[in-house]
Amino acid sequence: LPENIHSRLRVVLVRPRNPLNIGAAARAMSNFGFASLRVVNPYDVAFREARSAVGASRVLAGAEEFTSITDAVADCGLVVGTTAVGRREIQHPLRRPEEAAAIINSQTSRVALLFGSEKVGLSNRDLSHCHWLLRIPTSESNISMNLGQAVAVCLYELIREERSIPEPLHEDSADGQHLERISGLLTEALLFAGYTSSEGRAATEEKVRRLVHRLNLSSADAELLLGMLRHIEHDKSR
Amino acid sequence: LPENIHSRLRVVLVRPRNPLNIGAAARAMSNFGFASLRVVNPYDVAFREARSAVGASRVLAGAEEFTSITDAVADCGLVVGTTAVGRREIQHPLRRPEEAAAIINSQTSRVALLFGSEKVGLSNRDLSHCHWLLRIPTSESNISMNLGQAVAVCLYELIREERSIPEPLHEDSADGQHLERISGLLTEALLFAGYTSSEGRAATEEKVRRLVHRLNLSSADAELLLGMLRHIEHDKSR
Repeated sequence: LPENIHSRLRVVLVRPRNPLNIGAAARAMSNFGFASLRVVNPYDVAFREARSAVGASRVLAGAEEFTSITDAVADCGLVVGTTAVGRREIQHPLRRPEEAAAIINSQTSRVALLFGSEKVGLSNRDLSHCHWLLRIPTSESNISMNLGQAVAVCLYELIREERSIPEPLHEDSADGQHLERISGLLTEALLFAGYTSSEGRAATEEKVRRLVHRLNLSSADAELLLGMLRHIEHDKSR
Repeated sequence: LPENIHSRLRVVLVRPRNPLNIGAAARAMSNFGFASLRVVNPYDVAFREARSAVGASRVLAGAEEFTSITDAVADCGLVVGTTAVGRREIQHPLRRPEEAAAIINSQTSRVALLFGSEKVGLSNRDLSHCHWLLRIPTSESNISMNLGQAVAVCLYELIREERSIPEPLHEDSADGQHLERISGLLTEALLFAGYTSSEGRAATEEKVRRLVHRLNLSSADAELLLGMLRHIEHDKSR
C-alpha cells in the first residue's frame, strides 16, 4: 500500500531563526496530522528554545536536524519550495497551492516541502534543490507571510481535499539521492569538459541541479542516467 | 456595485490575550488583502503592545475596539464563528471552510468572522451571536489551532477561489443591529410573559439570539418582525 500524504510529507525548515516560528510550524503540522519535521542549519539557540518550550509537541521533539538540504531531502522523490514570488524564481515553474496540493497528493514518493528563513526565504542555491515552487497568492502590498502561518496554509491546502485523494501520476519517481548523484556526476563531467571554469563551479552545479530536477525522472531513468554518467566518469579517468 | 469580500469582511478577535497573536492576525489580513480588524475586550496590555510593536501594520493601526460583540457586528448581515468542534456547538450548523467561504463570498452584506481567545475560544454566549460556525478540519489528536494560524487559514480559504466569485444567494440580509433589536424585544416579551424568570434572563437571551440568527432573515422580514415585536411591547405597556 502506498503511504498517504501524512506519512510521506517532510516539512523542511531551512535556517529558521525564531523559536516561536519553529514551534508554530510544528503546531500546524500536529493540527493537520503531519509528523515529519526537518530543520536545516537552524539558529542553534532558537532550535533548543523551541524544543524546550512549555507544551512543545511530539512533532518538535521528533524533529530531525540536518546540515544540508541535500541530506534533508535525500529520501524524497519530489522537492517543492515555497515562496513569495520574486524575479529570481522565474527559472522554476510556480504553482498555486491548490495545483501544488493536487500534484503532491498524487505522488507515491516522499515529498519535501521547503520553507526558507523568516527574513530572506529560500536562496537561489536552496531553490536549486526544488523541482518547482509553490506560491501562496498573497497581496502585492504585503507579499511576505509569517513562517508559521505559511506552513499552516500549505498544510491546510494539502488536507483540504482529503475526502477525494487523486490517483497517482507517477508510480515511481527518482529519489533525492539519485538526483543528487546525477547532478554531481554531470557537474564533474562539465568541469572536465571545460564547460565551466572551477570558479564557475558553484553556479554550474546549481544550474545542473535545477535541470535534473526539472526532468522529473522515474527511478528507472535515474538509474539509466547514472549508469551513463558513471561510464563518462570512468572514461574520463583513463 | 456590491462591495467585494475584501471590503465587506470584518475580522473580529474576541478577548485576545497575546499581542503576538493579534499582530499575527493583522499580518495575515494584510497578506490576503483584508483591512477591517475589530477587537472585543482585548487584554489591554496586549492590544497596546501589539499596536506599538515594530512593524505593526496599517491593519493593526486601524483596528477598532469594542466592548461587546453586539456592537462589533452591528453593521454585519452575517456573523460566522470559528471553532474547534466541541459538544456545545451542536446547536449551530458547522461548515467546512470551503463551504463557509462559498457562502461568505456569495453575500452582498457585510460579514463578521469571529475568533475566540487563545485559551478557550468562543463562549456559548459569544456563539449566540453567530448564524453558523466555520470549523477548520484539524486532527482529533490536536484540534486547537494557534489564533494567528487559524486566521491565516480562514482568510486564505476566502481568497482561494477569487478567480470565480459565486453569485449572491441573498441580496439583502438583515444586519446585526436589526437582529439584536429583534432578539432584545423578543426576550423582553418572553420575560413579561413569564416564559422565564429574571434569573433565567441571560440564558433566555442567548437562546433567543441564536434562534433569531438561525432564521436568516431578509431586511424586509426583519423590519416586519420588528414592527410586530414593537406592537407587542407597546401593547404590554398599556
